[in-house]
Amino acid sequence: MVAATFQPRAAYSKVSASPMPVEAPVIRTVLLMMLSLDALSRGAALARTLTAKQNLQNMYSVPSWYGVCMTVTRGDAQRREQVLAAALTVFATFGYRKTSMDAVARAADISRPGLYFLFAGKEELFRETMRQELDRALDDVRTALAAPDADLDARLVAALDANLGRYVGTHLNEGVDELLEHGTAQLHDMYDGHRGAFLDTLAEAITDSGRSATAGVTARQIAEVLQAAGEGWKHRVADREEFVGKLTTAVGVALRP
Amino acid sequence: MVAATFQPRAAYSKVSASPMPVEAPVIRTVLLMMLSLDALSRGAALARTLTAKQNLQNMYSVPSWYGVCMTVTRGDAQRREQVLAAALTVFATFGYRKTSMDAVARAADISRPGLYFLFAGKEELFRETMRQELDRALDDVRTALAAPDADLDARLVAALDANLGRYVGTHLNEGVDELLEHGTAQLHDMYDGHRGAFLDTLAEAITDSGRSATAGVTARQIAEVLQAAGEGWKHRVADREEFVGKLTTAVGVALRP
Repeated sequence: MVAATFQPRAAYSKVSASPMPVEAPVIRTVLLMMLSLDALSRGAALARTLTAKQNLQNMYSVPSWYGVCMTVTRGDAQRREQVLAAALTVFATFGYRKTSMDAVARAADISRPGLYFLFAGKEELFRETMRQELDRALDDVRTALAAPDADLDARLVAALDANLGRYVGTHLNEGVDELLEHGTAQLHDMYDGHRGAFLDTLAEAITDSGRSATAGVTARQIAEVLQAAGEGWKHRVADREEFVGKLTTAVGVALRP
Repeated sequence: MVAATFQPRAAYSKVSASPMPVEAPVIRTVLLMMLSLDALSRGAALARTLTAKQNLQNMYSVPSWYGVCMTVTRGDAQRREQVLAAALTVFATFGYRKTSMDAVARAADISRPGLYFLFAGKEELFRETMRQELDRALDDVRTALAAPDADLDARLVAALDANLGRYVGTHLNEGVDELLEHGTAQLHDMYDGHRGAFLDTLAEAITDSGRSATAGVTARQIAEVLQAAGEGWKHRVADREEFVGKLTTAVGVALRP
């Protein structure tokens, strides 16, 4: 397969202006180099897989492979953060299709091989970027709902804002939504799962307060209406302050005593 | 201006393969033809303006112009309807920018001059298409709210569905919304005006029922939450039946007794 597509004359003429016959040793050397590169990239892919697994377990060392002992330092975790932050901006600005790994590497100030060491490809990078984004939003929602000195209305407004208002009023607002809504093929059902978890969390807080269960309306239904209203407003408001104002109206209407 | 851009040799060579010197009479004839075409198109533009004014007054004749008595028959009003219906589908499918007058003429089964007789250009056609769409939606909303034998909840659900659900579950759903949301430059504030009028109509029906004015929540606020929730759901539901189900939930939550 490698030999079939290998064109020594064309490759050589790129280096030197005057074409020369290519000797057998040269071809052998080039083939050896290509095979070595292939082995290296397979090694990197395996190391990457191992790294991802280790990261999941919050450990920072990878077992030896082919006798080479690799150590993934805390520096890699920081770089990962740096890449994911840059990737979110690039994806949200240009969209999934028009974003290249090169553009993300430049934005994250990392080399192309460095980027490919951390993420196997664009799809994996995209999925990890959005996963981190959604996980953080849900963490903030839980923090907002657990606020000790706030009443239910204020906690619900803060929770809705933490999940839906993150990019309201910024130039990334439309872009991030576009990625979540139309990146279905790459994200599988990650976004649906997130929306379900958000609804569960809201409904639980409403149930705990004892403010639902009147006139046949369930806590889950109240949560659904609040979520839908927030989604309806997030691209209509001028800034986050107006968004919080609208959410306050929605909570006031949906949870009238 | 016409003389400066006129290139007889190039124009001629398109007709005959062997270039020939172009005589003065030929140039004069071509110039006269161009001037006549110009006068004709100016005439058509004026007739169009007059037609539009007359249409507004629901009259079907145009005063004579340059001694030519034109009569706009009911056939033109029907053709107008036919063009607006076709235009909505074409605009919603391809977007404003990628829609050409030619494509609309083909879809409406009308000649290009016939189309230009009815509408001065793409922008006017687009505006009239969306104006008719929004007017019809508001008419349907008023009809739904005035239903004699239905309670407030059912009338509100029908009104919300008449305005927001028209294209839910069809392939035009995303497209029509895109046109309304992002055709701002062409529509000026037509869509904002429509949304305001819809809110007023909903709020009036809620006020009339005497079901608001509890716990500091106004009828207008209830209407706003219902509108936002409907807008949040309209691109998430699978079909119109599911949409009506969601609207029923929203009305149930927002108007709990």
